[in-house]
Amino acid sequence: MRVTPWEVTGKIDYNKLIKQFGLKEFKKLPKIFQDFLLFRRNIIFAHRDFDRIQNAVKAKKPFAMMTGCMPSGKFHFGHKMVADQIIFYQSLGAKVYIAVADLEAYASRNPNMEELRKVAIEEYLTNYIALGLKPKNCDFYFQSDRSKEGKKSSAYYKLAAMASRHATFNEFKAIYGALSPGKMTASLLQASDMLHPQLPEFEGAPIPTVVPVGSDQDPHLRLARDISQRIKAHKFLQLSSTYHKFMPGLKGGKMSSSDPITYIALDEDSKAAKKKVNKYAFSGGQATVEEHRKKGGNPDVDVAFQMLKYGLETDDKKLTKIYNDYKSGALLSGELKAITIEKLTKFLEQHKKNREKAKKQIDKFL
Amino acid sequence: MRVTPWEVTGKIDYNKLIKQFGLKEFKKLPKIFQDFLLFRRNIIFAHRDFDRIQNAVKAKKPFAMMTGCMPSGKFHFGHKMVADQIIFYQSLGAKVYIAVADLEAYASRNPNMEELRKVAIEEYLTNYIALGLKPKNCDFYFQSDRSKEGKKSSAYYKLAAMASRHATFNEFKAIYGALSPGKMTASLLQASDMLHPQLPEFEGAPIPTVVPVGSDQDPHLRLARDISQRIKAHKFLQLSSTYHKFMPGLKGGKMSSSDPITYIALDEDSKAAKKKVNKYAFSGGQATVEEHRKKGGNPDVDVAFQMLKYGLETDDKKLTKIYNDYKSGALLSGELKAITIEKLTKFLEQHKKNREKAKKQIDKFL
Repeated sequence: MRVTPWEVTGKIDYNKLIKQFGLKEFKKLPKIFQDFLLFRRNIIFAHRDFDRIQNAVKAKKPFAMMTGCMPSGKFHFGHKMVADQIIFYQSLGAKVYIAVADLEAYASRNPNMEELRKVAIEEYLTNYIALGLKPKNCDFYFQSDRSKEGKKSSAYYKLAAMASRHATFNEFKAIYGALSPGKMTASLLQASDMLHPQLPEFEGAPIPTVVPVGSDQDPHLRLARDISQRIKAHKFLQLSSTYHKFMPGLKGGKMSSSDPITYIALDEDSKAAKKKVNKYAFSGGQATVEEHRKKGGNPDVDVAFQMLKYGLETDDKKLTKIYNDYKSGALLSGELKAITIEKLTKFLEQHKKNREKAKKQIDKFL
Repeated sequence: MRVTPWEVTGKIDYNKLIKQFGLKEFKKLPKIFQDFLLFRRNIIFAHRDFDRIQNAVKAKKPFAMMTGCMPSGKFHFGHKMVADQIIFYQSLGAKVYIAVADLEAYASRNPNMEELRKVAIEEYLTNYIALGLKPKNCDFYFQSDRSKEGKKSSAYYKLAAMASRHATFNEFKAIYGALSPGKMTASLLQASDMLHPQLPEFEGAPIPTVVPVGSDQDPHLRLARDISQRIKAHKFLQLSSTYHKFMPGLKGGKMSSSDPITYIALDEDSKAAKKKVNKYAFSGGQATVEEHRKKGGNPDVDVAFQMLKYGLETDDKKLTKIYNDYKSGALLSGELKAITIEKLTKFLEQHKKNREKAKKQIDKFL
């Protein structure tokens, strides 16, 4: 098992990650959090300093949620998991900050800034809105173009520059392995992304800020946390973070933007999606019907089941029944896929309509 | 001899520097440039791509001048030499850009941003204005707070971030020797300082830009020049630069902000300044009057003479006479110092008045 921001390989042992990274498991969360499927199903499996967020929610005090998106490729169900969290925190009253990491993308992937902007809006923002993101309490911005207000823009970039004084090359190397000036700049901007909501120019004062990430992103969090406490000019509240499990790719391995048969995009035609699931979705079933009836299937590795678990089936009772039936062999792989496809089709067709409505709202976010 | 941005040691052979750095000497400059004492006296001794600036001046086409100041210590006659150049280019019609390198200072020297701001205004800006800087066609800004307009701010910092993609650690190391994340960030911001006047958000189009520097700063220029041609998203005109000689410190060695007897500050009390010159100014004269009359003095190392040459005596004929008289032994060291002190006193007393007037104008520049 190897989990770094640039490489996730091997079977992931989340308990080991918790120990390795020094994360905390959740104690019983209040209902308001349990109502959210990703918490309830332990897909968000660990945290740092999440108490701060719980307390803010309980006391109805201001808090922020910060996340970023890398504008490349199609918006798929892996991205949806992050979007669901954004929208959940917004519904709790969080001020939502969403950074388009276009300067990071420029530094490491694609030097076409206009293309990056287009992807960010047409893929990410449009899908966020279609999934339920509201313009109120939402600051959607580009790293390359922080704000219409000069004071805000300067404060954001100034923080990234200040952060550079408080980090060493070895710390960056520990995150990236092979370091380059571009990666270092990206990492400093990312630290500012996470911390700048607490500046006077933004939320006006240090406030709890939660950054929901995949566990491969923890090194970035650690660096931002460390730097935040070294900058004496600001009294940053320590960042909170949560860690979600990786959504499996269609074929059971990694979901990869560069390989379309590993994911389903949110604007995928429902018929094409159906074919993909039938043809590629990794099955936890047995080789023959007879064997399946006898030994039962393995829902924990079955991608059709995972798709239900990660959100297509919101009803826990129904999901549990499917789990048990599949495990006992009462439910066949084909039948499980049919359930998933039905849910998926319904979702994609509704989402298609939502996307059309969302397109008209884009201006409210820019 | 060792000349790097962080170390200047040994006797400086400017001809050697020209060869080493690949600079160009000036061919006969037009009168409009010769009128400026620092050109005429070959104190500005070399350049890169200065033809571009000459052509713009000749054709009355727009061009920019960019320089920076490091907000630390007192503003002394070494700094005045740069101020004289700013004001000269402004008089020729240049759009003047002056960067307060406060983020560079934060990264490498002083983490007190408010103190840096105070020094920048009370020392640098006040003296610039007192020396003749006008608010028109002048963009005086802080690296930490680029512009009131968000678009401009973002464009400036974005350029620094983009630049990071186009440089390697080895290039930074070649400039700095020992590199740190802070120094790297400073260097990228500096590249943006030099190049951003050419962005659509600033001068609207690529225009000739001259950066007057001491020869120790050439590595920064080389990096900015190299990066500018690698960023394909913009069509930067190659930077022009000029190189001035180092003004000797009072005791003949280096002028050092941390050692007040090596310089005279522009707000120094004229009586204290007189004492300093009499007591510390390195003399090119002989040990005794008799010997001096016989062998003559050496104006080229005599600091009192250099002070006249660098600007206190604007009349070339008078300066030449002093040079010859001193060399022949007709003029004694004490007499030479008396001439310098008279000019210096007059300058400091007038400058004191100018500073008071300047203080009232500061708001026009911020």
